[in-house]
Amino acid sequence: MNHKSCGDRAGEGFRPSFTLLAEDEATSARRGKLSLFHGEVNTPAFMPVGTYGTVKAMTPEEVEGLGAEIILGNTYHLYLRPGHELIRDMGGLHEFMNWRRPILTDSGGYQVFSLNELRKITEEGVTFQSHLDGSRHMLTPERVVEIEEALGSDVMMVLDECPPHPSSREYLERSLALTNRWALRSLDARRRPELALFAILQGGMDPELRARAASELCGQPFDGFAIGGLSVGEGQELMLKTLEATTPHMPRSRPRYLMGVGTPSDIVEAVARGVDMFDCVLPTRNARNGMFFTSKGKIAIKLARFERDELPPDEGCGCYTCRNYSRAYIRHLFRTREILASRLITGHNLYYYQSLMKRIRAALEAGTFPAFLNDFRAGQEVLQ
Amino acid sequence: MNHKSCGDRAGEGFRPSFTLLAEDEATSARRGKLSLFHGEVNTPAFMPVGTYGTVKAMTPEEVEGLGAEIILGNTYHLYLRPGHELIRDMGGLHEFMNWRRPILTDSGGYQVFSLNELRKITEEGVTFQSHLDGSRHMLTPERVVEIEEALGSDVMMVLDECPPHPSSREYLERSLALTNRWALRSLDARRRPELALFAILQGGMDPELRARAASELCGQPFDGFAIGGLSVGEGQELMLKTLEATTPHMPRSRPRYLMGVGTPSDIVEAVARGVDMFDCVLPTRNARNGMFFTSKGKIAIKLARFERDELPPDEGCGCYTCRNYSRAYIRHLFRTREILASRLITGHNLYYYQSLMKRIRAALEAGTFPAFLNDFRAGQEVLQ
Repeated sequence: MNHKSCGDRAGEGFRPSFTLLAEDEATSARRGKLSLFHGEVNTPAFMPVGTYGTVKAMTPEEVEGLGAEIILGNTYHLYLRPGHELIRDMGGLHEFMNWRRPILTDSGGYQVFSLNELRKITEEGVTFQSHLDGSRHMLTPERVVEIEEALGSDVMMVLDECPPHPSSREYLERSLALTNRWALRSLDARRRPELALFAILQGGMDPELRARAASELCGQPFDGFAIGGLSVGEGQELMLKTLEATTPHMPRSRPRYLMGVGTPSDIVEAVARGVDMFDCVLPTRNARNGMFFTSKGKIAIKLARFERDELPPDEGCGCYTCRNYSRAYIRHLFRTREILASRLITGHNLYYYQSLMKRIRAALEAGTFPAFLNDFRAGQEVLQ
Repeated sequence: MNHKSCGDRAGEGFRPSFTLLAEDEATSARRGKLSLFHGEVNTPAFMPVGTYGTVKAMTPEEVEGLGAEIILGNTYHLYLRPGHELIRDMGGLHEFMNWRRPILTDSGGYQVFSLNELRKITEEGVTFQSHLDGSRHMLTPERVVEIEEALGSDVMMVLDECPPHPSSREYLERSLALTNRWALRSLDARRRPELALFAILQGGMDPELRARAASELCGQPFDGFAIGGLSVGEGQELMLKTLEATTPHMPRSRPRYLMGVGTPSDIVEAVARGVDMFDCVLPTRNARNGMFFTSKGKIAIKLARFERDELPPDEGCGCYTCRNYSRAYIRHLFRTREILASRLITGHNLYYYQSLMKRIRAALEAGTFPAFLNDFRAGQEVLQ
C-alpha cells in the first residue's frame, strides 16, 4: 500500500494494522506484517536510524536497496532543526527527504533526557534548553503528537520518561505512573488515525513494574507497544531477563518494538523473546568510526594488519562494498578521512543487519527458527 | 579499449595516441579522441580530481555515470599515503580504487611547492618534508616516473617547477630551463611506453618564455603537452592572453592539457584557444562548501533565502540531485553537516561540468562552436 503523500486525503480511510503470519513453537518468536500508511513492513524488522531526515551517508534509494522497509526519524532533532512546521509545509518528512516507505519517529523524550542537563519534568510535560542554541522549549504529550503528525510519521511514539539505570524503585514507580498518564493523553491528542500511535512500556529492570506498565497500557487502543528503557547500560543478560518479564504481558495481536537495540546478538535473542521491531545507531554510527559488522565478528578497519589485506571486509558477503573493495583500500580511505569510507562501511553494515533480519524471517517461515537460533549462538561463541 | 589491469602483459604492445576529429574554423577549438591504456577519452574533456584515489564523496560508478571518461590522481598525496609501492602491490591504482577507465596523475611538483615551505630545489630534484609527519623525501624526474608507473597511470606528468606569480623574468628563465632539463630526463626514465607521458610548458606570464618552452619541448616524443603555471592568481584575462601566446606554438597533433583550470567560463574560453583537457577541484571542493554551479550561476545553499525553497538547485537540470531534492532539504543537510549534502552537491556539480563538456563537443561536431561561444558569453554577462 503506497499513498501519495502524508497529506493525501485519499488516505483518510486507512487504518494501520498488524497481521501475525507465523509463530515459533519452541520460542516466542513471531513473523508478521505491519500495514502502515506508506506501505507494508515485514517483521521482525530492523529500522535504520535517520536522525535528521537522512540515514547518514546514504541515499534513500540505497537504504531501500539494502532491504529496509521502514526507517526511524528523531522528533527532537527534527523539531529543533529544521523545525516540524517547515517540514510540514514542504509536504511532510517523506516528501522532504525523498523516502517513500514508512517512517517511525521517536517522541524526543529520550533525547530531552540524554542531551539536556537542565530539563525539568512536571505533570504537564518537560521543559528543556536546546543543545544547539540554548533556546527554551516545552514538550508535552499533546505537543509531541502534533509534531509527529506534522512530520507525517507512519508510526508515532508517545512522549515518555526514560529513567536512568540504575534508579530506585520509588523513582521508577513514580516515573512509570507519569509515563502512563502521558500515554493516555497522547491517545486523546491524536488527530490523524491513519498514522499509527505506539505506547512505550517502562519500569526499569523491575519485573513487577514492567508487568504493571503492560497491564495499564496494553488494554488501550494503541496500534503497537514499545519496550523502552532497555539497552541503557544494564548488559545483555539483564536486558533479556527484563524482556522475558515483559513480552508475555503484551498482546499477541499487536507489534512489539524494542527501542534502541542493538547488536546482532541482542536482536536475535530479543526476537526469540517475541520482539518484532528494532532500531539502533550501531550499524551506521560504528561505520563512521571504521567498524565493520561481519559474519566473523567486528572488524576495526584502521588496524595495521589490514594495511595490505586484499580480501573484502566480509568474505562471502554479496554487498556492493564487499564485491568491489579490499580492506586495504577502505583502510586507506578511513585513514585519509574520505567520505567514501563512511559510505562503503555504512552500506555494508546495513546490508549485514538487513540480511540478518531476512534470515530470521525465512527461518520463521520455514519453521526452522530454533535451529537458526542454535547455529547463531554457536557462531557467537566462536566469535568470543 | 579496455585492458584488464595496469600490470596486464597483453597491453604491452599498446601505444597511446590522439586523433583530431574536428577543428573549428573561427576559433582554435578542437574535437578529438585520446586513446589510452585503459580506454578512450573524448576531448575537450574535464577530469574530476581524485586526490587520494577517490573522487571525494563519490563512488567510481557514480563518477562514470556522470559522464567522466578520465579522472586525476595526485602523485604527491598517494606517494605519502598509502604509498605507491602498496598500490602497485595491490594491482595498481585502477584495481585499488575500482576505477576501470583512464587515470592521469600529476607529478607531485605542484604540491611540493605549495604545501612545503622547506623544500629545496637542486639540479637533481627537490627535497621536502612530508606535511603529514615531517619525514624527509626527495623527488627527482626519474623517481616521479617510477612512482607513476607503479600507480599504473594512463597519463603520467613530468616533474616540473611551478613558479609563483608574479616571479622575476630571471627566476622564470632559470626555472624554465630546469623544468625543461627535467622533462628530458623524464623521457629517458620511462619504462612503460604503453602509459602516456606528458611534458609541462612553463614560463610564467611571459609570452617569449612560453614560446621557448614550446620550442624546446614540443619536438620531443611526448604523448601530449600540458600548460602549467596558470590559474595561480593572475586573473582570467592574463591567463587567456598567456594561453594565446602558448597554444599556437604547440603541435596540432598532440593533446593539450591546461592544468588546474577552472571555472566553466575559463574552460569554454580555453577550449576556444585550443585546449583539449582540464582538471579542477572547483566542482568537488566547492560542493563540500555548499556551492552549486547552476545554469543561472553559483548558489551558496546555506543562505537563509533557501530555507523554504521547494525548487531543485538548478531548474531544468536532469541530474539525480535536481530530480529528487529541494533547495530547502539540501540546505538543511548542509547545516546539519550531513554527508548526503556533500554527495548531492558534488553529484550535481560534476554533472554540470560534464554536461558543459558534452555541449562543447556537440557544438564542435556540428560546426556550431562559434554560436555556442557567443551564447555562453552572453549568459555569463547576465550572471554578472
